Amino acid sequence: MRTVLLAASLCSIAVSALAQTARPDPGPLTIARQGSFFIGGRDVKSDTLSTLPAYAASGTITVDQMYVRYQVPVGELGVPITLIHGCCLTGKTWETTPDGRMGWDEYFVRHGHPTYVIDQVWRGRSAGDPSAINAVRSGKEPVDKLPTVFSAGHESAWAIFRFGKEYPQTMPGMRYPISAQVEFWKQMVPDSLANLPTPNPTVPALSELAQKIDGTVLMSHSQSGIYPFQTAALSRKGIAGVVSIEPGACPAPTEDMKPYAGLPILVLFGDYVDEFPRWAPRLANCRAFIAAANAAGGKAELLVLPEIGIKGNTHMLMQDNNSLDIADILLDWIGKHAIAAP
Amino acid sequence: MRTVLLAASLCSIAVSALAQTARPDPGPLTIARQGSFFIGGRDVKSDTLSTLPAYAASGTITVDQMYVRYQVPVGELGVPITLIHGCCLTGKTWETTPDGRMGWDEYFVRHGHPTYVIDQVWRGRSAGDPSAINAVRSGKEPVDKLPTVFSAGHESAWAIFRFGKEYPQTMPGMRYPISAQVEFWKQMVPDSLANLPTPNPTVPALSELAQKIDGTVLMSHSQSGIYPFQTAALSRKGIAGVVSIEPGACPAPTEDMKPYAGLPILVLFGDYVDEFPRWAPRLANCRAFIAAANAAGGKAELLVLPEIGIKGNTHMLMQDNNSLDIADILLDWIGKHAIAAP
Repeated sequence: MRTVLLAASLCSIAVSALAQTARPDPGPLTIARQGSFFIGGRDVKSDTLSTLPAYAASGTITVDQMYVRYQVPVGELGVPITLIHGCCLTGKTWETTPDGRMGWDEYFVRHGHPTYVIDQVWRGRSAGDPSAINAVRSGKEPVDKLPTVFSAGHESAWAIFRFGKEYPQTMPGMRYPISAQVEFWKQMVPDSLANLPTPNPTVPALSELAQKIDGTVLMSHSQSGIYPFQTAALSRKGIAGVVSIEPGACPAPTEDMKPYAGLPILVLFGDYVDEFPRWAPRLANCRAFIAAANAAGGKAELLVLPEIGIKGNTHMLMQDNNSLDIADILLDWIGKHAIAAP
Repeated sequence: MRTVLLAASLCSIAVSALAQTARPDPGPLTIARQGSFFIGGRDVKSDTLSTLPAYAASGTITVDQMYVRYQVPVGELGVPITLIHGCCLTGKTWETTPDGRMGWDEYFVRHGHPTYVIDQVWRGRSAGDPSAINAVRSGKEPVDKLPTVFSAGHESAWAIFRFGKEYPQTMPGMRYPISAQVEFWKQMVPDSLANLPTPNPTVPALSELAQKIDGTVLMSHSQSGIYPFQTAALSRKGIAGVVSIEPGACPAPTEDMKPYAGLPILVLFGDYVDEFPRWAPRLANCRAFIAAANAAGGKAELLVLPEIGIKGNTHMLMQDNNSLDIADILLDWIGKHAIAAP
């Protein structure tokens, strides 16, 4: 029912399922301040930092910190937004699209929202620890102590991102700028998350960041989809709302729903979900979670784009050819629902 | 002699060796455009991308691409500047300092220079390949096929960065904001460069970037200090000048100097160099290189900061407490020497 209400409120935005709203040259952007910093981090002592003579094997390094880059626009400010990328990717997800269009990071700033882009711990500019590799390399540990680190190949990622059911076929009407796919593959990085504890150290870092910002929407994607919920379960401090884009998982509907009571939550899915065995159960679980959360006093909504007439969106909808139209929908929701001073 | 001339031209800038020039609140910043993209990259087929059932072991990934983030200010533009970080670090090097002051990335933009910040290939947001690790982990390759990946520990990095001769002692008058050292350690990442060919794939990527920008100063640091020279040896196209900050190596003076003829080159060193056995020979070699380059029609200069009365600068001088004064020196040099249309 909430979906229906949301759809009604969005009818002026979703004017066309076929083409992105024309976007004029946005002109210059004036920002009040920008920069980058880290959140979290812990020191680790190791005797296997290096196998090179130029760098000592023994010493202390810092890991589990989360890189954050931010821009704050001038003028009246909207609710800050924190962008949390998904599996095998970095904060680059939200920047300039593979075909050279404006990313959500800049678009949100241009709409008055201080915007924070993170790299999950152990990925991108957030350092991991090579000690386990060097411990095996130097014979101190057996091979089975090697870390679990993987890359997603283009061919298998194809269906995960729902570009098509099988590489290189594409879904009919699919909106990803597939002619620029070579630029997308460059965004993918090796992923060490399987080595990390639960919750991932990114989660307490997000909590600390939300409190530092003192009010932010946590906008997650895919593998990080669950992180804002896990963050809310740690503490509601600083969380102005949750936008979970195509989460790999929502909280189980059987869980305690107290952490989400009164928290504005939007779970967003694109098109073709029911045609993909990887995704259909995830959407079904999110539907059940939202029902459970609302039954327990929640303010949770599910938006499945084809249900409001927007078709063709893939898993990477922040880069699809109507990405800024989707951004408008999210900005509209944030403007109406996010808690101004959580 | 060039050093003396340079020193004379800088006497109005280097007013004090003791304190950074006071910096008022810079106010808002207006940029014409910004974004990020990758340069380079090649596809690699592998059967050991993953040991997890959720991700296929076989497939194609893209590696050797170089991440680039840029901002172009409004108004009359200076020569573009490309910032190339050093060992065990990422583009974060040039952003907000550990104690929260403005980084050179923004400072240069505020002075009218389109500024490009890269992550070297296989580091930060520029992906590496985990195949070798998984090949060993799955028993397909022996342990000695594991990649060489190392992290620099705080204790050994201490003398490399010339904070002091031995951790945690500091050099007298040392300008690094050492009270914020915990934030600096968070910037350090594992480094895979020892696995990569020579020249490092970052070098052809820099050449491609320089040609895309169509004129940029290549500003390198430490381990990447040699890269602009290697880039010039590939092609002079797009290179407006070279600023090499505390290079780990200059080209050998016995090499062919033709690639550097007529190229504006500034090699910059901070303080205490002769007191550190790691650094003294590097400075000596750079002096010899500059003499050889100039003897062959070069336009190369060496600037050793204490020789013009600026004392206390460490290896991380872009983060020292007088970092913006050093930036002014470089901007002055770029304004006078960089080739406007290379």
